[in-house]
Amino acid sequence: MRQVAIGIDIGGTNTAIGVVDYEGNVLYEKKPQLPTPQKRENPNMTMAVSEELIEKYISSLTLEIKTAIEIVKQINPNIEVAGIGIGAPNGNYYSGTIENAANLPFVGVVHFTDLIQKNFPDIKHVKLTNDANAAALGEMIYGGGKGMKNFVMITLGTGLGSGIIVNGDLVYGADGFAGECGHTTLVPNGRLCGCGGYGHLEAYCSATGIKRTVYELLAQYNATESELAKVPYADMTAKIVYDAAENGDPIAKEVFQNAGELLGRSLADTVHYLSPEAIFLFGGAAAAGDYIFKPTKESLERYVLPTFRNKVKILPSKLKEGSAAIVGASALVWKEMEKNQN
Amino acid sequence: MRQVAIGIDIGGTNTAIGVVDYEGNVLYEKKPQLPTPQKRENPNMTMAVSEELIEKYISSLTLEIKTAIEIVKQINPNIEVAGIGIGAPNGNYYSGTIENAANLPFVGVVHFTDLIQKNFPDIKHVKLTNDANAAALGEMIYGGGKGMKNFVMITLGTGLGSGIIVNGDLVYGADGFAGECGHTTLVPNGRLCGCGGYGHLEAYCSATGIKRTVYELLAQYNATESELAKVPYADMTAKIVYDAAENGDPIAKEVFQNAGELLGRSLADTVHYLSPEAIFLFGGAAAAGDYIFKPTKESLERYVLPTFRNKVKILPSKLKEGSAAIVGASALVWKEMEKNQN
Repeated sequence: MRQVAIGIDIGGTNTAIGVVDYEGNVLYEKKPQLPTPQKRENPNMTMAVSEELIEKYISSLTLEIKTAIEIVKQINPNIEVAGIGIGAPNGNYYSGTIENAANLPFVGVVHFTDLIQKNFPDIKHVKLTNDANAAALGEMIYGGGKGMKNFVMITLGTGLGSGIIVNGDLVYGADGFAGECGHTTLVPNGRLCGCGGYGHLEAYCSATGIKRTVYELLAQYNATESELAKVPYADMTAKIVYDAAENGDPIAKEVFQNAGELLGRSLADTVHYLSPEAIFLFGGAAAAGDYIFKPTKESLERYVLPTFRNKVKILPSKLKEGSAAIVGASALVWKEMEKNQN
Repeated sequence: MRQVAIGIDIGGTNTAIGVVDYEGNVLYEKKPQLPTPQKRENPNMTMAVSEELIEKYISSLTLEIKTAIEIVKQINPNIEVAGIGIGAPNGNYYSGTIENAANLPFVGVVHFTDLIQKNFPDIKHVKLTNDANAAALGEMIYGGGKGMKNFVMITLGTGLGSGIIVNGDLVYGADGFAGECGHTTLVPNGRLCGCGGYGHLEAYCSATGIKRTVYELLAQYNATESELAKVPYADMTAKIVYDAAENGDPIAKEVFQNAGELLGRSLADTVHYLSPEAIFLFGGAAAAGDYIFKPTKESLERYVLPTFRNKVKILPSKLKEGSAAIVGASALVWKEMEKNQN
């Protein structure tokens, strides 16, 4: 029998579902993705409506998982499903719940893995965590973190997520929600963060934070001549800033320089806490390559204690942008099997 | 046979040596303490002089350990020494070395546990880490952290040390030096820290940091009428500030309020990283009780993500101030035995 894991990533817009083998190969991926229930369609949610939404969503998800298994088994009848791994906003590993996720319409605490497990009584491992934690496990099991016992994964997307590996396992902490580096204070009384706090790392170094810096600098220098000055705020992306930097635009370069300096200072603190072997950067902003990696490394080295200098690698994630979410989620299953062997 | 552990704490001035049982009772403690070789007596150290100093120090230490064991065995002949645990500045758990410790005169990397082990070939466990890590283990094995799997220990002394417990074990990180929260940046471009960096937590919230705030506030308010204005800078201690606060001195109260607000913000970040069940405060500044605990807790709750609110306990350490260093160091031995059983 060849074992495979189901990987599910619950995004704010869509839910990705795939089947992944132990080497990280995606054997099947549902296209188009399953729509995730939308918060904006249900602004004033009641418990009753929420429960109905969840029931429908779990039904569709169950159907899609069954379809995925069937399709993969048609190609290779010797396949056995080892488990289902789920990446979800505010996903709690210990309880398998999704709790008050800002981007989901569900009210209160949803016992998500219980609901899935009920429909798949024969599948042993049904586990859930947040997407950045899942990505860190993916990096450890399939990616650049293979063989590493201590590293940190930073995902630079709309938000800034993080997953911490210590002694070869994810740090979930006392309540299951550890690894929220994006909400550490980087600039006291600084920019408003999406969470309502001020000056958080996420507000400066996520793809969104980088976009905000573009317009701050355009305003500061009144840089009408920058090619970034032609792009409306709502349309700006990290890719556009990268392209401008490639064209030699000084504002674009300064944006990455600033983001890198701030990220490097924050990651120096990560090193002071955890002394990781490496820090992996993942996501759109990390795709800017040296524009972001160089100032990040320089700044980190400037801010760490001498003890830690030239010891910590800052590396691009080896997970593929397109499939990282389901691949990361599937890694939860292999990690669970490893734990159960001990 | 009743098992005991030798606990050794290498301080900048003196070295404490004691014998501790599994319940944390100190069966013997050397008084007066053994002097630690002094840096100020050897400002221009050569490798040859350093090696001679180390040899002499190891000899004295060996003699004191043998004496300690003999004395304890005279009282209770059924005693067996399970191991030797050492707390030392810049102590590396993995390699058993002391590396470039700022307060010690030793040049380069000293293979400390090897040197001790050579003199005690029959003792199975000889282990070393820094003092704050040792204190964290002490809290877990003998103190308020009993039964906790995830907590953080903060020592508020001349410096600010920290030890991180995740999944029931100390976080040493990739290189053995993790847990340096004192050198995370709290105020960008802020006060000069002892390490040469700027705005570190240690520069504000250690006992020394609190002292600095006293004079900053005296200067700011030109507070000639404060009782703290009578004390020369060199003589100020956290205890004097505490006594002044007890007498109603507004500067003293504001000093603790400021320190607590800053510490609370920093510990909020600790929570974002690690989601500990509790954070223990230890040391002179922690003895100020509510003056420091109340603003720390309030500030932490203000800065943490809603997910973490009212979940994390801020507690005074249960280790006794006088014996905490040797008791903490001895805990390394029991932890090592536990690891070797698995």
